[in-house]
Amino acid sequence: MSESQESKDSLSESLQQVITLLDKHKLVEDLVRRQSMHNHDLVESLVHKQNLQELQKKLDQLHSADVAYILEALPLEQRLDVWELVKVERDGDILLEVSDAVRQTLIADMNTDELLAAAEQLDTDELADLAPDLPKDVLQELFDSLDTQNRARLQSALSYAEDSVGGIMDFDIITIRENISLEVALRYMRRLGSLPDHTDKLFVVDRHEILLGVLPLKRLVVNDLAASVADVMAADAVVFHPDEPADETAKAFERYDLVTAPVVDENNKLVGRVTVDAVMDFIREEAESDKLSMAGLREEEDFFASIWKSVQNRWAWLALNLMTALVASRVIGMFEGSIEKIVALAALMPIVAGIGGNSGNQTTTMIVRGLALGQVASHNMQSLITKELGVALLNGLIWGGVLGVIAYALYGNFNLGLVMMAAMALNLLLAALMGVVIPLSMNKFGRDPAVGSSVLITAVTDSGGFLIFLGLATIFLM
Amino acid sequence: MSESQESKDSLSESLQQVITLLDKHKLVEDLVRRQSMHNHDLVESLVHKQNLQELQKKLDQLHSADVAYILEALPLEQRLDVWELVKVERDGDILLEVSDAVRQTLIADMNTDELLAAAEQLDTDELADLAPDLPKDVLQELFDSLDTQNRARLQSALSYAEDSVGGIMDFDIITIRENISLEVALRYMRRLGSLPDHTDKLFVVDRHEILLGVLPLKRLVVNDLAASVADVMAADAVVFHPDEPADETAKAFERYDLVTAPVVDENNKLVGRVTVDAVMDFIREEAESDKLSMAGLREEEDFFASIWKSVQNRWAWLALNLMTALVASRVIGMFEGSIEKIVALAALMPIVAGIGGNSGNQTTTMIVRGLALGQVASHNMQSLITKELGVALLNGLIWGGVLGVIAYALYGNFNLGLVMMAAMALNLLLAALMGVVIPLSMNKFGRDPAVGSSVLITAVTDSGGFLIFLGLATIFLM
Repeated sequence: MSESQESKDSLSESLQQVITLLDKHKLVEDLVRRQSMHNHDLVESLVHKQNLQELQKKLDQLHSADVAYILEALPLEQRLDVWELVKVERDGDILLEVSDAVRQTLIADMNTDELLAAAEQLDTDELADLAPDLPKDVLQELFDSLDTQNRARLQSALSYAEDSVGGIMDFDIITIRENISLEVALRYMRRLGSLPDHTDKLFVVDRHEILLGVLPLKRLVVNDLAASVADVMAADAVVFHPDEPADETAKAFERYDLVTAPVVDENNKLVGRVTVDAVMDFIREEAESDKLSMAGLREEEDFFASIWKSVQNRWAWLALNLMTALVASRVIGMFEGSIEKIVALAALMPIVAGIGGNSGNQTTTMIVRGLALGQVASHNMQSLITKELGVALLNGLIWGGVLGVIAYALYGNFNLGLVMMAAMALNLLLAALMGVVIPLSMNKFGRDPAVGSSVLITAVTDSGGFLIFLGLATIFLM
Repeated sequence: MSESQESKDSLSESLQQVITLLDKHKLVEDLVRRQSMHNHDLVESLVHKQNLQELQKKLDQLHSADVAYILEALPLEQRLDVWELVKVERDGDILLEVSDAVRQTLIADMNTDELLAAAEQLDTDELADLAPDLPKDVLQELFDSLDTQNRARLQSALSYAEDSVGGIMDFDIITIRENISLEVALRYMRRLGSLPDHTDKLFVVDRHEILLGVLPLKRLVVNDLAASVADVMAADAVVFHPDEPADETAKAFERYDLVTAPVVDENNKLVGRVTVDAVMDFIREEAESDKLSMAGLREEEDFFASIWKSVQNRWAWLALNLMTALVASRVIGMFEGSIEKIVALAALMPIVAGIGGNSGNQTTTMIVRGLALGQVASHNMQSLITKELGVALLNGLIWGGVLGVIAYALYGNFNLGLVMMAAMALNLLLAALMGVVIPLSMNKFGRDPAVGSSVLITAVTDSGGFLIFLGLATIFLM
């Protein structure tokens, strides 16, 4: 990992430079094409090449993460132009950094040899991240090229779910024995010559690779050289198991401020480590995917994906919403007679439904957050529902009152105002109840309450709002 | 920081145990009260005390972060019961761990002496986080009790915005000179006896505290002891400035996989450091606050806040939505004549408006994400709008077609079906256009597009949907 200050400061500048160079390159190509065959070769070989060299130089200076960023921000054609200029030995790193959607476009542009060359640069745990996107034959060749230990590691890494500890762990572990002195340990370090990224601690194991403790580098450098590893190590390290969910691990990393932590199997045998940067990537990806799901985007969408691909990505959500809207529409249909008599009902009913949806989503957001933080459970469910119903009743009376007055002012019908107020209060109560019950039920049945709750709440408060308002109007105003 | 495996595994168990002990405690109190004065003292002194001791023992075993978690999950009364049992010397740590809303309830329960005792346990950067919630007189006494260096640090920490690098940095920096050998550096470390949490590198400065480079512990332990710090240090470390926005820092930490990084002033003088755990806390808080804002919750709400407090927290959003709903309602009001003639319009119009809102929110989510990742900019704006309009047109024809057929089937009116289809397509185009334009405009005017875009989109697609559908119906069906 190179830590270059220059690249941090000028990331958007870099993007702009790449685009300018690409545009020049394009201009030259157009020029060449238009000048028919005359001095084609001359121009091509001089101006064109010079441009590409400048671009290539620029790319070589950039951190892999920054090249990835630039690739993401370019439309497909330009993206592939840039991709071809990237040095082969960096392909692997960059493929790991780009999003799934963009990675697929890059891999589609590579042949088997290029893919194998890219894969050779990667560690086993990185290969595991790349593997699902690789063509089957490439993956097979890759397997054949690995030694026994790495093949076993890749196989086990592939067997874990992406959102498990096994899916985010790596194998860059430095182990030592507990009976040596710190001086010997330091001599061993110097013999290694370099330590993996993020190494903040060494793992202390016995000869069967059973984890006995961890020795933070911090302790290694401040303690007496004559002390033994066993004296100085922490025996009660936080450990994880490969099949634990990664989000629990993320919480533990935050709670206990970890940088790296050992991963052990059921026999306490050391099998890998989790690093804070893998955890941060995981947290970021989870947050992104939550945001996308909440708007019904099934997966991250390449910004420059084809229209047809985007339609496919988004259609399920629209179809679901269409269904719930149709149900609400049929509820209104039941009351067409009432609407014909008092047409004002048609203008007022969306307000009742809309505010119910907003209020219900506020409640759900609170509950989903409480579930995520582990603070909502059976022991406080009663007091939560009571509180939310109280908030809804108060809001219902306040906003229902305001709306009742407005309805009366607009249509000069006092009873219409009363119906409006009552409908608002009742729909907000329904919204509050559903706002608690829906996410809790989804959680109970193992669904992610952050994703589907909002659609369900809105469906209930829409249909419910129409039913309550038009129903009350039919009873009291007809 | 204690790294205890036990506390990780049994966090929800711990919560359950605390609740059980609290309940017992409550039962005993009730018993004592009901038994009038008879053997009051006896019961009180035996059973009651024993219970509290058991609870206190349990709490003492828990990590501060875990006590904070338990406090968050308890209703106010029980929360304060537990808070009184927490050892004074842990108060400060725990106050830092709880959410703002819960912190206020705890501080309200403490007197000046208790607050000062809690504050004494904290580092200057931690004090700065706590300061905004402390009563003015306590803060003043605190200032007076600090030495000159720490007072200056606290003042400068308080002067930076919470979401700037200055707001998340700390002062736990270990500095060394460049001209010493690694052997001398290691001897210096051993003299220190311990290093601050997260120390993965030492900061190399000259005698004016100007940053010359960083020496990762990793390099310190693997290189020849005779080498000088200057030979081994990295001179091109990623550095940050106190007034930079913290979210840029967070991106740099992810991009370059940092654990700690130096913070320097405009003269390159070392003033502090940022650690990965502060960055993770920042990322998590940003994500939480985004989620809350999107549902119109102005701040994080204590789960057991009073109904009145919750109403205040949520009212602004409901008021805003009421306004936009009223506008939409007046749009419908303009077409009451048409609805009286064809009452089916009243049942169909919410579908057009609703699907428009959903589709617009999908587009906005994409754009907001692209803005956050820095991938949406002037150079690709044209192609984004083209793509989104294409998606909208295709969706409009598909779903509009489906709905047109349904409308025809329900009401046997062919032209009504055609109007439905045309209105759907037009409203989806409007939604796509607004879905791109609204977040980009908000971003341009320095507002957070993640927060307000959704309300605006829905407002436009609601009113616009009603206007388009009822307008087309009035023109072609009357």
